[in-house]
Amino acid sequence: MATWLHWVDLAGVAVFAVAGTLMAYKKHMDGFGVVVLASVTAIGGGTLRDMILDLPVFWVQDPSYFYAIIAAALITIIWLRNKNTFPLHYLLFADAIGLAFFNVMGLQKALTYGASPLIAIALGTMTGVFGGLIRDVICREIPLVLKGELYATTCIIGGVAYIGALLLGLSAVSCMLVGFVVTLAIRLGAMQWHWHLPVFQPHDKVDE
Amino acid sequence: MATWLHWVDLAGVAVFAVAGTLMAYKKHMDGFGVVVLASVTAIGGGTLRDMILDLPVFWVQDPSYFYAIIAAALITIIWLRNKNTFPLHYLLFADAIGLAFFNVMGLQKALTYGASPLIAIALGTMTGVFGGLIRDVICREIPLVLKGELYATTCIIGGVAYIGALLLGLSAVSCMLVGFVVTLAIRLGAMQWHWHLPVFQPHDKVDE
Amino acid sequence: MATWLHWVDLAGVAVFAVAGTLMAYKKHMDGFGVVVLASVTAIGGGTLRDMILDLPVFWVQDPSYFYAIIAAALITIIWLRNKNTFPLHYLLFADAIGLAFFNVMGLQKALTYGASPLIAIALGTMTGVFGGLIRDVICREIPLVLKGELYATTCIIGGVAYIGALLLGLSAVSCMLVGFVVTLAIRLGAMQWHWHLPVFQPHDKVDE
Repeated sequence: MATWLHWVDLAGVAVFAVAGTLMAYKKHMDGFGVVVLASVTAIGGGTLRDMILDLPVFWVQDPSYFYAIIAAALITIIWLRNKNTFPLHYLLFADAIGLAFFNVMGLQKALTYGASPLIAIALGTMTGVFGGLIRDVICREIPLVLKGELYATTCIIGGVAYIGALLLGLSAVSCMLVGFVVTLAIRLGAMQWHWHLPVFQPHDKVDE
Repeated sequence: MATWLHWVDLAGVAVFAVAGTLMAYKKHMDGFGVVVLASVTAIGGGTLRDMILDLPVFWVQDPSYFYAIIAAALITIIWLRNKNTFPLHYLLFADAIGLAFFNVMGLQKALTYGASPLIAIALGTMTGVFGGLIRDVICREIPLVLKGELYATTCIIGGVAYIGALLLGLSAVSCMLVGFVVTLAIRLGAMQWHWHLPVFQPHDKVDE
Repeated sequence: MATWLHWVDLAGVAVFAVAGTLMAYKKHMDGFGVVVLASVTAIGGGTLRDMILDLPVFWVQDPSYFYAIIAAALITIIWLRNKNTFPLHYLLFADAIGLAFFNVMGLQKALTYGASPLIAIALGTMTGVFGGLIRDVICREIPLVLKGELYATTCIIGGVAYIGALLLGLSAVSCMLVGFVVTLAIRLGAMQWHWHLPVFQPHDKVDE
């Protein structure tokens, strides 16, 4: 893997580790359980992606990802101990950046290994969504993918933008930049202005 | 893989996609999050099966599964927008058919790749149960496998019927038909008449 | 794999199967759902470990693990039907032994296949924690890794002890014994005397 891609991957891992540590703080976790939750959030999406593509899991032969996780978790812990209040908007912001990073990494890796555009968009979304999803499931929070605002949809739109840029002949770096910016911008917009994409009409009647 | 097996797999994927979309409706999900939940339900079981058997994951090289998921989700969405009421029994019925489909697909694939009968029954049950299980876990519902009626048990009995048909010298198609019908019939019977297989005596005393 | 290692693995699987069956009893599960929950708890951690290391999943070619699970579940069921009360401390005790077993098996397998010490500790912790984690997530219990007492931390300390013993030139058997005893002793101590490793200061203010 090219060096700059490795740094992109490390950045996504670090940002999701921050999001995992913030959630661990919210849940009053102690001990290295904090680092475990940070790790699960940070490497969950990429691990699933590599297992599905039958590639060597990215962190098994390369300890630098764990150094990034431990560093990101420690800095967040020190910062939280000084501030001593839970910043939900920082958690959502870190989650949004991680989502965009992992979406383009998933797209890029899937296309490199011969997946079709549709499958690449699916794998990008899966990579982006999965880390935060298992964090929320473990912590018994309502997963962000279930809440009203656009979440998985932002990955799909970012993926379409990436494929569009690719068809226009842009370089891999530019495609990833386009996909990253589109995913992040739409997710931040959805958080700010509560964007929805109504699929179902409002319904009160639920026959059970 | 033979063509007819591909169609069986596609049918199972489409039916579980319907079940995932119905659950997304119940949970008031919006945007492509509906398609994401439908996909997780539909390909979760088979993805786990293929990763455990170390085979190429079935949908990575073949976009037809995603077309089936998107078509099944769209038809269900249109149908729900017209009916505008949540039909729990349709969700349970779609789940039962998906369970039976994936059970026989898991059995068939495991036996093809040299697993022993006991392991094949375990993998069939895992394939059948896992898609619905992660759907329920993500949606914070009580997983069907935990509820009182026979659920995983139906896969095990269907698996024993499949192995029995195989020992009687029936063809692969006939074995799959036997396993499918037995699994589905017992699951529908359990839903209709609330069949139980009591393992523990009723207990009120829970020392914690 | 050496014969004695196979027996260590079988013992860990059986102990986690007991923990899964005890949880199934607490949740009033019926039918073979009990065996399914016991299996998920017992083989979840090792399955994830083998998929990440891209090794053949340990139970696919070897039915003895399922015989161990079924035997352990049956004995626990018979014992529970006679006692007819839920023993939470037995569940926690079985979980602690399984945690220690799977931690050293994960460490041992990761080091055998060329992982660095840091990655081996991460994989050992993951192997130990994952089986009980999915059991708790499926059963909608607060995962033990989230609760206040040391849990994942005990695996990390046990892993450091294992690596330390390795650096001192001890044999593989001795290293595993050291890792097992350290992990189990610290976990049992944490359960008995409610050991914590405070990472965050107590905080009441949670801005959401």
